[in-house]
This record gives sequence, C-alpha cells and structure tokens, in this order.
Amino acid sequence: MTRWQPNARERLEQAALELFTTQGFAATTVPEITARAGLTTRTFFRHFADKREVLFAGDEIPDLARRLIAEAPAGLDPATLLVGGLRTVAETRFEGRRDEVRQWREIIRTDPGLLERDLRKRAALCEAIRAGLCGRGVDATSAAMFAEMSVALLQVALERWLDADDERTLFETVLDTLGSMKTVAASFSTDAP
Amino acid sequence: MTRWQPNARERLEQAALELFTTQGFAATTVPEITARAGLTTRTFFRHFADKREVLFAGDEIPDLARRLIAEAPAGLDPATLLVGGLRTVAETRFEGRRDEVRQWREIIRTDPGLLERDLRKRAALCEAIRAGLCGRGVDATSAAMFAEMSVALLQVALERWLDADDERTLFETVLDTLGSMKTVAASFSTDAP
Repeated sequence: MTRWQPNARERLEQAALELFTTQGFAATTVPEITARAGLTTRTFFRHFADKREVLFAGDEIPDLARRLIAEAPAGLDPATLLVGGLRTVAETRFEGRRDEVRQWREIIRTDPGLLERDLRKRAALCEAIRAGLCGRGVDATSAAMFAEMSVALLQVALERWLDADDERTLFETVLDTLGSMKTVAASFSTDAP
Repeated sequence: MTRWQPNARERLEQAALELFTTQGFAATTVPEITARAGLTTRTFFRHFADKREVLFAGDEIPDLARRLIAEAPAGLDPATLLVGGLRTVAETRFEGRRDEVRQWREIIRTDPGLLERDLRKRAALCEAIRAGLCGRGVDATSAAMFAEMSVALLQVALERWLDADDERTLFETVLDTLGSMKTVAASFSTDAP
C-alpha cells in the first residue's frame, strides 16, 4: 500500500456524506468513514480536525472573500466587486455539485451543533466582506450593508437553487434573486410611518 | 419576608449585568447574582432557566414579530408593515436603555457560546418574518429577502446606535440606515458581469 492516496480528501468526503445520510451524523464515527473510504484514520486526521469539518470544507469562503476584495482593482465599485465575488464562489464551490450540496443541507438541518456552525460561517463571511470594504475606503454603514446584502443574496439564492429542479446555474439564480432584492429595497420608504 | 418580590426580574437582570461586567460572564454564579439582588435562587429560577437566559430576555422578539405580522391589516404592504414592526421593537425593547444594551453587547462579545446564541436568535427572527410574510401571500423569494433585509437593518442600525454618542433614537437610526440600504441595493446591476 502506497503512502500517497490519490483523491483521499474527496473519497473521505464522499464516504462521510453517504454515512451521514444513511445512518445519521451523530451515529457515524471517523473509523466508519475511513473504512468505507478504504483509508486510515491517520489520513483522515491529516485532512480534517473532526467529522464536523468534513461538512465545512467551505469554511475557506471567508478567506476567499478577503483575497478577492484585497486583489480587486482600486477603482472597482463595491457592487461590481461583490457580484464578481459571488460568481467566483458559485462557480468554484457549488456549480456541478447540486446533489452533494443538497445532501449537506439535509445533514446540517438534523443537528443543532451543525446549524450553529453554519450560522458562524455565515457571520464570518459577512465580517470578512465588511472589513474588506472598510479597508477600501467604503464608509462603515455602507460597508456593513453591502456585506449583509451580499451574504443574504448568496443564502437566498443557494436555497432557491437547491430547491429548484430546472437547469439554471447558481449564479443565474443569484442574478435573479438580486432583481428581487432591488425591488424589495425600493419598496421601503424612508419617511417615518 | 414576603413571598412577592417587586421588580424581581429587573433586580436580577441588573445584578447579573453588573457582575458579568465586573468579573466576567464565565466566573459569575447564579447564587452570586441572587445575593447581589437580595433574592433567593428559587426566585431566580422562576424567571430564568440559567444565567445565559438573563442576557436573552429579548428572545421573545421573534414571537413579537409573528404577532405583529399576523395582526397587521390584510392590505398593508410588507415594507410598511416591517418598518412599523422595527419601530415597535426599537421603542419597546431598546429606547432609553442604550447603556444597558451596550453592557450586554460587551458581555456577549466575550463568550463564544453567547455569540452563537445571539446568531441563533437572529436566525429565528429572520425565519419568523419570512414565514409570516409567506402566510400573507408574499412570494417565497421576496419574503426571504424582506426578512433578511429587515433583520440586517435592525442589526446594522443597532450597532450604529450603540457606537454613537449623539441623542438620535434607535428608530431614527433605523430610518437613516434604511436610506443607506436603498442606495446600496440600487448600486447593484442585474446584468451579468
């Protein structure tokens, strides 16, 4: 047996997802995951700190957001920058993996600890965007609203895409949801009621 | 000693807040809180399940949102309904208590468990609004966006109000933040980049 296991990470993710789906997240152990993947627990722990981590490989999204914002041309306006960022996230993390992401969502819904982790991930993404925009000179209130709105956009579009049975991409769904967001925002009046 | 303790809840909240602030949340015990308030632990547990609950008396905000949405006149549009709801929440839960809410915020920031609880509270409010609007016949995507945007509005306005040192009310800050939200939303283009 060679020490190098090709696609070890993907095989572990696949095995974990199957076991979480068939026998539940709480009931699944790391040795069961590695046995199913034909790998050692040592290999597992080279890739993931624990079984929860298998579901949150997407935790690097806040890092990706920080990088995209830091590397964007200085003159780019925040809205264009953020839509470009959403496109990158959609295309590199989600497109082509809808069934798998649906399975994740089902598993996360079964466990309060996983749901909390998901909320923290979302809050970390929002904070990364807010801080990145402030660093580009966007005023504090606008930076906070841009961050909140892009995270909401991703969240609502992702749910729609996972619930849909047509062939629209996630990014097409993001743009469509953006249209709803603009209509909703325009319907508010700033006059005191 | 009479069995009825006037303002027991408020006295316990005040004592807890003082102790959390001076000696930290983790280090404070329920007997210390009740001793400081001059009340029994029995009285404490009539009002709160544990010391965390003292900080989350505002958990009833999702219930308040559900009630406000359910009781709103049938023809009222969602934006007007939600701004009215934000006004009610601001006036009944926050106005006149800025220093106290600032203390809460500082305590919550020190403890990861409290931060998660705060995120769950926010998610519960968002879900209450979304479900309430769906129940009034608002389409699913708009209901989700209205919910996300009103919760973001409350969150961003609350942070601004707590950071500010002028005499603007929270609701005035909500209306001002709403102006930023509309500008931010209008700056997005729905053309694919």
